[in-house]
Amino acid sequence: MKRVLYDLAAADESVRFSPYCWRVKLALAHKNLPYDTVPWHFTEKDVIAFSGQGKVPVLVDGARVVADSQVIAEYLEVAYPNEASLFGDPPSRALTHFIRGWADEILNPAIARIVLPDIFPRLAVKDQGYFRETRERAWGMRIEDFYVERARYVAEFAAVLKPLRSTLAVQGFIAGPSPSYADHIVFGSLQWARLMSGIVLFEPGDRVVEWMEAVLEAYGL
Amino acid sequence: MKRVLYDLAAADESVRFSPYCWRVKLALAHKNLPYDTVPWHFTEKDVIAFSGQGKVPVLVDGARVVADSQVIAEYLEVAYPNEASLFGDPPSRALTHFIRGWADEILNPAIARIVLPDIFPRLAVKDQGYFRETRERAWGMRIEDFYVERARYVAEFAAVLKPLRSTLAVQGFIAGPSPSYADHIVFGSLQWARLMSGIVLFEPGDRVVEWMEAVLEAYGL
Repeated sequence: MKRVLYDLAAADESVRFSPYCWRVKLALAHKNLPYDTVPWHFTEKDVIAFSGQGKVPVLVDGARVVADSQVIAEYLEVAYPNEASLFGDPPSRALTHFIRGWADEILNPAIARIVLPDIFPRLAVKDQGYFRETRERAWGMRIEDFYVERARYVAEFAAVLKPLRSTLAVQGFIAGPSPSYADHIVFGSLQWARLMSGIVLFEPGDRVVEWMEAVLEAYGL
Repeated sequence: MKRVLYDLAAADESVRFSPYCWRVKLALAHKNLPYDTVPWHFTEKDVIAFSGQGKVPVLVDGARVVADSQVIAEYLEVAYPNEASLFGDPPSRALTHFIRGWADEILNPAIARIVLPDIFPRLAVKDQGYFRETRERAWGMRIEDFYVERARYVAEFAAVLKPLRSTLAVQGFIAGPSPSYADHIVFGSLQWARLMSGIVLFEPGDRVVEWMEAVLEAYGL
């Protein structure tokens, strides 16, 4: 069977640079499926018009034509179930490490800059000196100064949340149909903000808030 | 058996705000393990000195004392193997959606701002007009203007990579001991930068480069 991938090329056609085409090339290699590539250029819309759209990757797999890297990955998983799985084999624990890294190193700092000055007065008086000293040393600025650029921090927090939003757009929880430790991690971060700051980070009915409520509900909390 | 969690508290002790304690509370709920909490304040180092360190969460599980949310989660998974798994149950496919969202919405834009002006001259001449028009419209700026703040973009790219680095610090691949689609996704993004820009984003011997080579090697590429 003939298997052909239309693959974005530079002026030097040996240079194939599209990140989305690379996803497909590695997925094909993962499943040990041989294929040829056709170098394709942005403006050659006519060449892939048979796919019903104008972007690569386009995979022609015998009689099947599949476009879009994610659709192709899902297609390969179903069409070649006996080859190594693209999604099912890795331990979920390993993938959870990535989500933990994201929460610890990206999400939590993005939240901290917003809520630190609100946390301070809510602490037991005996804790306030400790909190001020450790946080001001870690951040290199005074707690009160976090208010100065708060609007920017809030805007950047919204941008940081994009991967969470795109995940919750396609499934109930980060871990799929029910919550798991990946959800616990991210919930913890947002709960911290919710409990210790009056700032409005979400509109009523926001999908993220809906998900937070669903996490609590799943455990009867 | 007595199970007690030392849980960070605000001045109002009913307010328990630590994101790391929340991770543990949800993990305990997930495994359906009842527990009591002890409200704890930052400065009460003496109260948890028995744990050998000075931060919460600290879980006392009968005779066992466990500190650090990740260590506690790993402990619960081993100590209570017959309860719902924290890491093993969710479909890896679901968690891969999060990594895809991160790559598409955070990583790729962070790379694009750096490499767009390098990509332009490497494209087939017939593609350059299309590329300029679509990219300048999407970004609201001229391709050449991406050079102006390049140093800042490179610094922000390094910050964006933190979750990848913390993941690769504890395991060979994003998906664990061998690569899977989550690796393909992230590899594709970094390969795009590597192929189309002469800019040095990594030092020789960088763990990320080592991982990229290992991905290619895993598939004999």
